[in-house]
Order: sequence, then C-alpha cells, then structure tokens
Amino acid sequence: MNDKLTDEKYARAALTYLAEPADRWLAQLLREHGAAGALDAIKTYSAVPANGLRPLSGKARAMKAAMERWQVRLPELPRPDQVLAFRESGIRLIAPGDPEWPGQLADLGDDQPYALWLRGNADLRFSCLRSVAIVGSRAATAYGSYVAAEFAASVAARGWAVVSGGAFGVDAAAHRGALGADGVTVAVLACGVDVAYPTAHTDLFDAVAAQGVLVSEWPPGRHVSRLRFLVRNRVIAALATGTLVVEAGQRSGAVNTARHARDLRRRLMAVPGPITSDLSAGCHHIVREWQGVLVTSAAEVTEHLSPVEALAAGGQPLPVIPRDLLDLESATVLDAMPRRGGLGTLRVAQRAGLAPAATATCLGRLATAGFVERCDDGWRLRRA
Amino acid sequence: MNDKLTDEKYARAALTYLAEPADRWLAQLLREHGAAGALDAIKTYSAVPANGLRPLSGKARAMKAAMERWQVRLPELPRPDQVLAFRESGIRLIAPGDPEWPGQLADLGDDQPYALWLRGNADLRFSCLRSVAIVGSRAATAYGSYVAAEFAASVAARGWAVVSGGAFGVDAAAHRGALGADGVTVAVLACGVDVAYPTAHTDLFDAVAAQGVLVSEWPPGRHVSRLRFLVRNRVIAALATGTLVVEAGQRSGAVNTARHARDLRRRLMAVPGPITSDLSAGCHHIVREWQGVLVTSAAEVTEHLSPVEALAAGGQPLPVIPRDLLDLESATVLDAMPRRGGLGTLRVAQRAGLAPAATATCLGRLATAGFVERCDDGWRLRRA
Repeated sequence: MNDKLTDEKYARAALTYLAEPADRWLAQLLREHGAAGALDAIKTYSAVPANGLRPLSGKARAMKAAMERWQVRLPELPRPDQVLAFRESGIRLIAPGDPEWPGQLADLGDDQPYALWLRGNADLRFSCLRSVAIVGSRAATAYGSYVAAEFAASVAARGWAVVSGGAFGVDAAAHRGALGADGVTVAVLACGVDVAYPTAHTDLFDAVAAQGVLVSEWPPGRHVSRLRFLVRNRVIAALATGTLVVEAGQRSGAVNTARHARDLRRRLMAVPGPITSDLSAGCHHIVREWQGVLVTSAAEVTEHLSPVEALAAGGQPLPVIPRDLLDLESATVLDAMPRRGGLGTLRVAQRAGLAPAATATCLGRLATAGFVERCDDGWRLRRA
Repeated sequence: MNDKLTDEKYARAALTYLAEPADRWLAQLLREHGAAGALDAIKTYSAVPANGLRPLSGKARAMKAAMERWQVRLPELPRPDQVLAFRESGIRLIAPGDPEWPGQLADLGDDQPYALWLRGNADLRFSCLRSVAIVGSRAATAYGSYVAAEFAASVAARGWAVVSGGAFGVDAAAHRGALGADGVTVAVLACGVDVAYPTAHTDLFDAVAAQGVLVSEWPPGRHVSRLRFLVRNRVIAALATGTLVVEAGQRSGAVNTARHARDLRRRLMAVPGPITSDLSAGCHHIVREWQGVLVTSAAEVTEHLSPVEALAAGGQPLPVIPRDLLDLESATVLDAMPRRGGLGTLRVAQRAGLAPAATATCLGRLATAGFVERCDDGWRLRRA
C-alpha cells in the first residue's frame, strides 16, 4: 500500500471490517457506487421506519437489513492512518487493481474479496501464477500427512507455490512440505493474518510469512468461525491454478473447496486411498462424480496443471504468463538477463539500471513465474 | 455333450489337445476348413522338404511349422469314446453353437477358444449373462483380500456370477466371497479342470464345481505354464459383463486381463488404494490411463454394469436377456410361473409339463438371468 491510501482503497479496507465476505448486498452496492460510495452509503444510512408511507419491496427490505447489519460495526472502523500503520507489523493491504492483486480472483464475480490483508515476504500475485492448492482433512491419517508433505515438497521444488488453509492435518503438512523444499507457500486464513489459529501454528505461520505469504479477507484481529472457514475456501480454490484433495471425508471443508474449484473451472485432482477409510471417501467422490483427476505422484499433478511442461525436455517448468504482462521493473530485469550463463544480482541490477533490492525482488518474481532460475553464478534464464 | 459327439465337436476337443489356444494359424485352418477339416489336415499333413521344387512363402513356412508343431501331440489324442468317458468324472465339453456356449466369446474373433472343458453344476452361458470378473494380485494384502471377498459376496447376493482365475490372493478371495453368499462363481483355469493348481485350492475348486463351474481351454490333465496364464486372461475378460481389478501391480496378470476387457469394450473398473502401495499401482493406472471407473462399493459395480438396475426400485436386478433368447425349456418354465405370488418347484413342473429335475435346472437358469427369484413359497417372478 506504499505510503498513500486512496479513498477507494481505504473504503475497501473499511468494508472488510463492516461486512462478512461474499455478501451479495454489498456486492450490489459496490457495483452501483464503488467502494468509497458504498462506505459512504453505509455511514450515512438512516433507517426509514418499516411502517413508512408505503411498504418496502423484498429487495429493499433485505438491503435495509444489510445496512443495519453493517452499521453495527462502524465503531470498529480504523482511520486511514491506522490502516497504514499496520505496515509496521508487516501487514499490508491489497485491493483489485493493485500490482499484487491476483487477477484470477475476478473469476469469483460478485463473490470476489473486497480486499486482502497480507503478511509475508512473497508476492501473492506472482506466487499464485504457478500454484496448486493442497487441502484435506484436519484429522488426516499418517498416510494423508505423508502424501501431503511429499507432494507439496515435490511441486514446490518444481517451482510451484503451495496454497492451503493453515489448518491441522493435511494443510499443515502441505505448508511444511513446501517450506522444507525451500518453496513458496500461501496460507489463506479464516482469521486476521496476525491471529494464530490454531495457536499451535504460531511458528508455522511465522515460517510461512518468512518464505511465503499469509492471506486473509478479514482485518487484523478477527477470529475464526465455522462460516468463515467455508467462505474462505472459495479464495483458496480461486487463487490456485488447480486444487488437489489429499484426504477428506465425504462432507468436509476440503470437498467444499474442491466444489469451488470445479465451479471455477480450475483443475481438480484427488489422491486415492483405501476404500475402507472414511477420509478417502471425499477423494473418491471427487474422482467419481466430479471428473477430478486421480493422481498418484507430484509429477502427475504438475503435468495435469501445465500440460506443456510434460512436453518440455527434462520437465523444466515454463513461464506461465507472457512477457508483456510483466510489470515494467520485472520486464526490465528480464531484458537485462544474459542470453547464456548466469549473473549475480548486483551485475543484473547494473545492467538493468535498477536498485539491487528492487532487482532481487524482481528476480524472485521472475523465478516464481518460471522465467529465470538460480544457478552457480547467481541467476540465469530458463530455457523455453 | 449329451450322448453323441459329432465329428466337428470331436475335432474341436482334439484341437485343444494339439494346439495352444489363440493360435493364428489354427484359426486360419478353422476358417477355411472347419474343425473336422482342420484336424484331418493336421493328421494327414506330410512335410514337403524345404528344398523342394520352389521356395515356400513366409506364410507357407509358418503354416508348415505350425503343422509340424501340432503333429507332435498327435499321439496324445484321445479317441471319441475316451472324450465321452470324461463325463464319468463330471467333465463336459462345450463348443461354439452348443446351448451352454457363451455367445460373447465370439467377441474374441480368431482368438475364440476352440472348445471349453467344464466341471461343475452351473450352466456357463447363463452364469455369465450377469457376471463380473474380480481379479487381482496373488500376493494381495489383507486390504485386497478383504475387498475382493466383500465385493464378490455382495455382487453374488445381487444375482451376479463372479468370474475369476482360481489363483491365490484376490482370485481365491473372490471365489470364496461368492460361495459364502450362496452365489455362482466361475473359475477359468490355466490347466485342466481336473488339475488342482495351486494344490492348496483342491477343496476350493471342488466347492466351485459344486456351486458354480470350472472352465478351461486345455484338456483334462494339462498343467499350467506362464504363457497359459496370460492367454487364459482373455477368456476371463470375454466371459464377464465387466472386469473389476481389486489389487494389482503395474505389470501383472490382472492388468493384462483389464487390457483385454478394455480391448473387448467390456466395462472396466478398479478399486483404489494407497498410492504408497505397489499393489494399487495397477488399479490407479487403469483409472488414469484406461478410463476405468473407480469403484468404492459393490453397489457401484452392479450400477456400472447394469445402469438400468440403478433406476429400478430397490435396486432389484432385471433380466439381462430378452425372453425370446431363452432356450425352449426355460421359456416354458417362465411361462408357467404365476403372475403373482410364488410356487414350489413341483407345482411349476406340473404347470409347465416338464420333469421336476429339468424344471429345477431351468428355474436356476432363470434366476441367474434375473427372471425369477426365490421366495417363501418357492419361486416367483421378479418384478420388472
């Protein structure tokens, strides 16, 4: 959020305080008035008595109820300088249109998050360009935890970010697997990015922030609820290129995430298990009923997510976005890379005419996007 | 084989002695000359020296080699009365065109068995009208054996015959599951129907003969070989309505059977398992690469084999063959069944004007084919 906060962006931050995500009435206000207009409408709304001159329509009654609901939280609203001050705790805010905003969230339509609160060093948009959601049961068996960690480590080592929900069981194993492989991992939480839920994951979340990024639709300080877990799942499905369910009961959050992935036309995959295990029932359901692809190895996952890669010699991942969609700084760094051999970050910065810190950030983004890779000399182009 | 043995049928019996199954050169002889003509050609063939007047074509050389190969076993050939005498040991011979010959074997084309040797009380053709092959690894885990037995018992209880290969592991569990549910089971052996291979299955094979039927392309007394197991697999796949693989390594006999089922356009199914188990790799391969249907319950198996049944109230199986394809005696018995309520076998026999023993046989066939079912009063029509 740099050092400035536009009215529109402040309004989006405010809306994350006032309304729960995916509120259809707020979506309508946003469509009609924009965020600043919607916030203003909420602040200035004064209830017309239901026994007014003429009866309200059903829609008007629902909007009235929504307005009254949102107004309840007006006292909690931070001022713009307070929103900016979160940066001191390493928490940043992104909104649609920001460079770090993942464009694929637009697939959620009216259910797109109003804004996202982030904590962590990775760039969310670049991380998610090549990402797989690995989700599953909190009560995973040893088999599920093992598979989640192995697959996460393996796809992370191939340059794919691992998206998950930060919960016990499969989620935690997936995050840890990616971290262990020095990969990027994205934890989409159902509480504020400064709230450790479950508390046993305090260290895990700090590790994710150091090497990846924590994401939330809720403002700092907010706690989880059952409904928040469910509404959060659509963001996991929307962020990732594809969703892999490792172990999940027939009616579980992971199957809910898989349903979102299916509805969003994301690639959907499941790991089979014994038919005698209730925790594999959800996976088998996904294969049988939703045409999810049965996968038995991490290679099959990345192959399914990026069929072109399977054709590339040595299975080297290829860039997933065209050059002309890169931001200007990253494009400049990419142009500065030598055709052959590698260069250290400082040399690249000199060739690009950019500050070393900015160059390092761009190289990280380019690596995530599959354009460059580390080598003995520093960085080099990835062969197409 | 009743009390007579036509020249053609004797010749087919003889060919099972002389040639290994699915011999393309014998298939050619059969097409051109029929079985009796082929047998005669083999008996009277005398080798023309290779250094004759003009060199032999490649095809002619291969046919010459085949003739010489088949002639080697001429001394083993039984006389017609010896073939008939097998009946005293409960062994019968069926050939294409016989009432008990399963018509679906014609799907094998040139690889159709020359004849089949049978031992057991069940009618092979009727049993296979509604049948599922349950196959898998000899070295099945407890999981595989459990699933094979459970599925076999369950589909058998729904009126489906269970076809398998009589081997250790999944095969044995499948046969035993069907037997335990008082169902019909068909064991397709790679040795003579009087040879117990493995010997530990002597009692199992006797139980199969009592309640189902043992089947072989090889004449009595013949022993197994590696190649015989493989060539046998096509008969399992061809006999059954569909094939279910329970647990199988990536390169295994069961996967070979599944490939035949796929090539024959039979329904193909597999039971998933842990991806960490080599014995589930074949099953997952069948789902991933061959569009086999992943199944997690016996109900899913019968549903897939007979989609109409899934629509029938209560999941009651419906007849799988039209009435006008029934043999005359069975059709007569079916006509004699009351519209409502049940009747004992004797009463049905009186109404049909048939001997009680013949009536009982027909009722068994009609039950296997899904037309009638047992009830407190004896037998009744199955509602459509």
